[in-house]
Amino acid sequence: MPVPLSPEIVATLDAYWRAANYLSVGQIYLCGNPLLEQPLARSDVKPRLLGHWGTTPGVNFVYVHLNRLIVDHDLDMIYVIGPGHGGPGLVANAYLEGSYTEHYPAIERSRSGMERLFRQFSWPGGIPSHVSPETPGSIHEGGELGYSLAHAYGAAFDNPDLIVACIIGDGEAETGPLAASWHSNKFLNPARDGAVLPILHLNGFKIANPTVLARIGREELTDLLHGYGHEPYFVEGDDPAILHQVMAETLEVVLRDIKTIQSEARTAPASMPPRRPRWPMIVLKTPKGWTGPKVVDGLPVEGTWRAHQVPLADFSKPEHLHQLENWMRSYRPSELFHTNGKLRDELSNLAPTGHRRMSSNPHANGGSLLQPLSLPDFRDFAVAMPAPGAVEAEATRVLGHYLREVMRLNLEQRNFRLFGPDETASNRLDAVYDVSGKAWMAEIDPVDMDLSATGRVMEVLSEHLCQGWLEGYLLTGRHGVFSCYEAFTHIVDSMLNQHAKWLKVSRNIPWRRPIASLNYLLTSHVWRQDHNGLSHQDPGFIDQVANKTSDIARVYLPPDANCLLSVADHCLRSRDYVNLIVAGKQPEWQWLGIDEAVRHCTAGAGIWHWAGVEDEDPDVVMACAGDVPTLETLAAVTLLREYVPDIRIRVVNVVDLMVLEPRSEHPHGLDDHGFDAIFTTDRPVIFAFHGFPAMIHKLTYRRANHRNIHVRGYKQEGTTTTPFDMVVLNDLDRYRLALDAIERVPRLADRVATARDRYWTTMERHKLYIAERGEDMPEVRDWRWST
Amino acid sequence: MPVPLSPEIVATLDAYWRAANYLSVGQIYLCGNPLLEQPLARSDVKPRLLGHWGTTPGVNFVYVHLNRLIVDHDLDMIYVIGPGHGGPGLVANAYLEGSYTEHYPAIERSRSGMERLFRQFSWPGGIPSHVSPETPGSIHEGGELGYSLAHAYGAAFDNPDLIVACIIGDGEAETGPLAASWHSNKFLNPARDGAVLPILHLNGFKIANPTVLARIGREELTDLLHGYGHEPYFVEGDDPAILHQVMAETLEVVLRDIKTIQSEARTAPASMPPRRPRWPMIVLKTPKGWTGPKVVDGLPVEGTWRAHQVPLADFSKPEHLHQLENWMRSYRPSELFHTNGKLRDELSNLAPTGHRRMSSNPHANGGSLLQPLSLPDFRDFAVAMPAPGAVEAEATRVLGHYLREVMRLNLEQRNFRLFGPDETASNRLDAVYDVSGKAWMAEIDPVDMDLSATGRVMEVLSEHLCQGWLEGYLLTGRHGVFSCYEAFTHIVDSMLNQHAKWLKVSRNIPWRRPIASLNYLLTSHVWRQDHNGLSHQDPGFIDQVANKTSDIARVYLPPDANCLLSVADHCLRSRDYVNLIVAGKQPEWQWLGIDEAVRHCTAGAGIWHWAGVEDEDPDVVMACAGDVPTLETLAAVTLLREYVPDIRIRVVNVVDLMVLEPRSEHPHGLDDHGFDAIFTTDRPVIFAFHGFPAMIHKLTYRRANHRNIHVRGYKQEGTTTTPFDMVVLNDLDRYRLALDAIERVPRLADRVATARDRYWTTMERHKLYIAERGEDMPEVRDWRWST
Repeated sequence: MPVPLSPEIVATLDAYWRAANYLSVGQIYLCGNPLLEQPLARSDVKPRLLGHWGTTPGVNFVYVHLNRLIVDHDLDMIYVIGPGHGGPGLVANAYLEGSYTEHYPAIERSRSGMERLFRQFSWPGGIPSHVSPETPGSIHEGGELGYSLAHAYGAAFDNPDLIVACIIGDGEAETGPLAASWHSNKFLNPARDGAVLPILHLNGFKIANPTVLARIGREELTDLLHGYGHEPYFVEGDDPAILHQVMAETLEVVLRDIKTIQSEARTAPASMPPRRPRWPMIVLKTPKGWTGPKVVDGLPVEGTWRAHQVPLADFSKPEHLHQLENWMRSYRPSELFHTNGKLRDELSNLAPTGHRRMSSNPHANGGSLLQPLSLPDFRDFAVAMPAPGAVEAEATRVLGHYLREVMRLNLEQRNFRLFGPDETASNRLDAVYDVSGKAWMAEIDPVDMDLSATGRVMEVLSEHLCQGWLEGYLLTGRHGVFSCYEAFTHIVDSMLNQHAKWLKVSRNIPWRRPIASLNYLLTSHVWRQDHNGLSHQDPGFIDQVANKTSDIARVYLPPDANCLLSVADHCLRSRDYVNLIVAGKQPEWQWLGIDEAVRHCTAGAGIWHWAGVEDEDPDVVMACAGDVPTLETLAAVTLLREYVPDIRIRVVNVVDLMVLEPRSEHPHGLDDHGFDAIFTTDRPVIFAFHGFPAMIHKLTYRRANHRNIHVRGYKQEGTTTTPFDMVVLNDLDRYRLALDAIERVPRLADRVATARDRYWTTMERHKLYIAERGEDMPEVRDWRWST
Repeated sequence: MPVPLSPEIVATLDAYWRAANYLSVGQIYLCGNPLLEQPLARSDVKPRLLGHWGTTPGVNFVYVHLNRLIVDHDLDMIYVIGPGHGGPGLVANAYLEGSYTEHYPAIERSRSGMERLFRQFSWPGGIPSHVSPETPGSIHEGGELGYSLAHAYGAAFDNPDLIVACIIGDGEAETGPLAASWHSNKFLNPARDGAVLPILHLNGFKIANPTVLARIGREELTDLLHGYGHEPYFVEGDDPAILHQVMAETLEVVLRDIKTIQSEARTAPASMPPRRPRWPMIVLKTPKGWTGPKVVDGLPVEGTWRAHQVPLADFSKPEHLHQLENWMRSYRPSELFHTNGKLRDELSNLAPTGHRRMSSNPHANGGSLLQPLSLPDFRDFAVAMPAPGAVEAEATRVLGHYLREVMRLNLEQRNFRLFGPDETASNRLDAVYDVSGKAWMAEIDPVDMDLSATGRVMEVLSEHLCQGWLEGYLLTGRHGVFSCYEAFTHIVDSMLNQHAKWLKVSRNIPWRRPIASLNYLLTSHVWRQDHNGLSHQDPGFIDQVANKTSDIARVYLPPDANCLLSVADHCLRSRDYVNLIVAGKQPEWQWLGIDEAVRHCTAGAGIWHWAGVEDEDPDVVMACAGDVPTLETLAAVTLLREYVPDIRIRVVNVVDLMVLEPRSEHPHGLDDHGFDAIFTTDRPVIFAFHGFPAMIHKLTYRRANHRNIHVRGYKQEGTTTTPFDMVVLNDLDRYRLALDAIERVPRLADRVATARDRYWTTMERHKLYIAERGEDMPEVRDWRWST
């Protein structure tokens, strides 16, 4: 189909588009009479009308033209739809292509299948109104706006032959994450990666307002898109006959640009520095609700915000029913479908076939392409342990050595990347640079280090972009780790929510294959942000993950470097989870040899007999989760051994937070017998926790011994101070934990008063010491474990 | 001081800048010998070096030049510092201007005061390393990056004589919220609002990487800034002598542009449509760590990422001490300060005085300007209540009528705005448009409605912008409400964290005056997002707020419109809180007359005797929090009355969630006696909750009757379905609640089997009904309360 298109081809494309529009309107409105064989009756209309028409005809318009492009050039292409409330359009296209029926056999390509297609949409037990995991060809949940372009780039990375068409809603374009995403092109290498084709869908209105980008004029918008590093091509108008021709020609130009960019980059001599091209993009300016009702009840609808959802909604008015019928008949369904409901052959021949169909492209069902990572033996990176507390190590630096080898072993596979907001080195994972630098396609100065067009470490000062890119990368069948300052992971709370929802739903869709887990490494954590102060101190992302369903959420708090290695290895092998790992980067005492670490992490929690004192029948259980709480707990044990030598202490460490929940609530949960064997049923438990204390209560309130569990954790106290003062401010310090223990053991009642005196004296000394010298008392700095 | 500046003026400005730089370096490094009267000794250097040098000289450079501009033109100006890790610079300037000493008398303008100034910085018990509430003149916590420009716009709204200078870090500019904030100029009216002067500080590097905007070339950057609606003026170089002149001239041009824009807008005839101007801005391109060490240990530092924090850090090397001394002496402190430590008069005369000092501008201590809102009597908007459950109303629409009057009564004061991400009408608050439209300075088409250059409703499809603008507006002493879809409020989790931290710290700073509370109205909530589906369903923002300290966090779940009115009125009168109100927008049965609503909301929770059955000595307590849970609970009571007429039921409703916490944990907490009087100490409690069930356990685990509290709430089940199916999917429906009650009353044990049968039969009927008809059973749709 050379461009300009012949009138016949335009007519066929237009018919296909009308078919998609017809099926979209049908999904929103009808529960019967799908081919309008009879005059439309009120009973043919669904009792509840849920769906979004406004963006749908534009989405369908792009889809049919991409189909033409795919067929003519044999392209490997997927779509990401930012305005995912255009869900009916994507379902319609998948149905037209046949892949919908392949995925959902009950939705046959027949009259009755069409009726079921219509009926299931936004119907209880049917399919959601937005693009969702149920939609073939999508890697993008279309409910919350803002993440489409980042997802598209994530999909394009390391897929050199893939083109990701990304429709960006002009409302969506007002969101922060989307606004930041435009600069993703500074991180995409045309030699190594695929192409992203942004299509800004300027249909002018949101739910109830015009959009900013539609109202700044062509010149300012062009400047903006140039500033984003794009060459925009405008496709503007409302006459389909003209627009089909313009769109087809524009897509040819855009594809030619992409091919030129890629071929120049891929054939350039290795000596030539990589050049960042100005990537093409399309601005599609068409009316909102295009081809829908122009006026309803005397008010303009097409081309206004009123077309956003259901333009005709009050079927108590016969006029609305009449308008709906006219609207649907305007697509001339009898020209599109056989009387048995099947799409006419001359139309179905327009669509790509097999895996070239965007709704059947394997990249959009990433699990089907997933190759397991080649992983080194993490034991090779273990910290040698002569004895517990005998050596110090920086846990994340140790992990960095392991990740360097993960990177190395998978360089050829090109399916592993590390993501972080300008913090990879700060988080001490910089060993990976030995193997792969930081992706960078913007200008490079001589002073720069470790930047490279072929780098596989993704650094940009945007948690949204890190998360969005990683999600896109995972959803297309690859692997990654996102390392982040703990406090600032909250920036992506809402993205986590959506990804977790995606995973939860996908797990129950048979044709969706499992994908690699979303692995977070939170470091620079609350207890060691003493130098940056209060703004950097927040452990609440644990709560955020723990609120997810138990089939998705995993939270690990490795107490030392060897446990971190064991946990990380486990997470990189897992599928369809959100794995949250919290681990410090500072030099800390190490506790477990690697074999012991593996046993401990596999169990998820356990008694550290080597740390306890006659712990078979303890007076008190000292429990801890998190590296700093573990340190303080063991230091408290030292104090207790010294001051109340006759106390019997059991030390318990929890790595896998979810073991605390009942087995009925979480598959990792200990059964009651196992829990009671560790925590007893009647002894006081002093639980030193990394995060907000209420989390432990929330997890354990059904346990037999819950009433005796006394939790210390972060209570929102902090500032720029010393690391030890941080735990003091939050009553998580060793002196407080020791006092907590003494106060709760009945047979030590006569020693409480002295212990309290000693505690307050020590606190005075601590305060004086840091106020005068700006550092912690020598006994804190010099403390180390000894038995 | 006309420009070009005379050489003498340049010399004086430069000296002032050197003084600020000297004091900044001193804060980062020294704990003694502040004036370098002796050769620098290792003991003069702090044991822990915490702070950020890189951005500081640029921040100081801007500051001294703004000072000149303020003095020459008698400007009312505040600053917002995006790269707030430049904290030492702001503290230095406040100290130079004298306001630091006014706020903190111990930090005298003397030798010993300077020593204390140095010592307190990043010192335990001292001040944080970032710009923070402790910093005079700041409304912006500088820890987490991304919110500066939105804060600046919030401050400028309705302050026509104010100029808000906003330094944007080029790292910060990569974040989503900042990238979205540029378009704020489409919402700023030069006739009514003040001006924002963005200064993009292009110092080239982040912690460990170059910045994107520094590496896209001047042309692309200019396009980008034009696209954002700005005219950029470039100030670029590293020779202070030249840059002082360029900066001064540029600021004159920029100020002239601002004045021209404002005067044109303010003198234009009313008939002329408002015009959106191209606002000026500055791009300041200077080396990172400008004037600091050029090379350390053989590696370049100035002009690289290595200057980000502490360029010299290893004082075990004598060379570093030597370099530090040379660096500090390069500012020639003896020319700047008298031997007694006081700034020389010819320098201190450069600074503005009184409230013209940016560090003493009252707008930056908004509480000092705060005027209470004129509030109508909310009782006037009450839904008339013949009896409980006798009428339906849309709670937020009722609230909208009240907010319309709030808007009207404060139009003249110009201190109230309503913020929402394109959802004000969807959230049924559109009555406010009767009084004030939606702010809009972009193009207007004839089809548009309610847009206006003078509108006070702020709508943009960015939760980040809504929150950022509102924060800036509140922090400068005004009032507002942010209405948002419940699920998507998570987008601003991290912004909430930072604002809550700001409030917590500010409350303990005597000179910071209380500001109006941050009021959230979450509607379109989880239980009525049946039409949009899973992506729109998440009640977790309650958890997010509840994790804040008890002096800040308030969570309200009004069960009906009259309670919503009472709660909203209370929140608009409150100060220094984060108030979270969750209320539905759909037509729902109403329960309380307005007087009863006021009593109920004031108590926070109470027994609804009218709804119970012989509730003095109940078999079961049916508790509820949230409008939909309340509905289901009362419907469950109806079922119980019918099927087990001899059951004794107490109905409890909770409006103020924090009453559930012990009094020791939250000031709203009921004392144990009060709690037990409502919830009993030994009866089963079936608690129907709006949010995640664990929240109720977390709040009540210390209560006597906790073991008997059985909570139903959202458990992450949902899709596009019917409203009633939503509660069924999550086991929060009336049938489940009724069964829960029967199962837990021992004397009804013989009726459990029958009740279960009936329950399952009903569920079958429900499922069949919605599957076949797409709507709920008639007995659900038609249910209404009757006694």
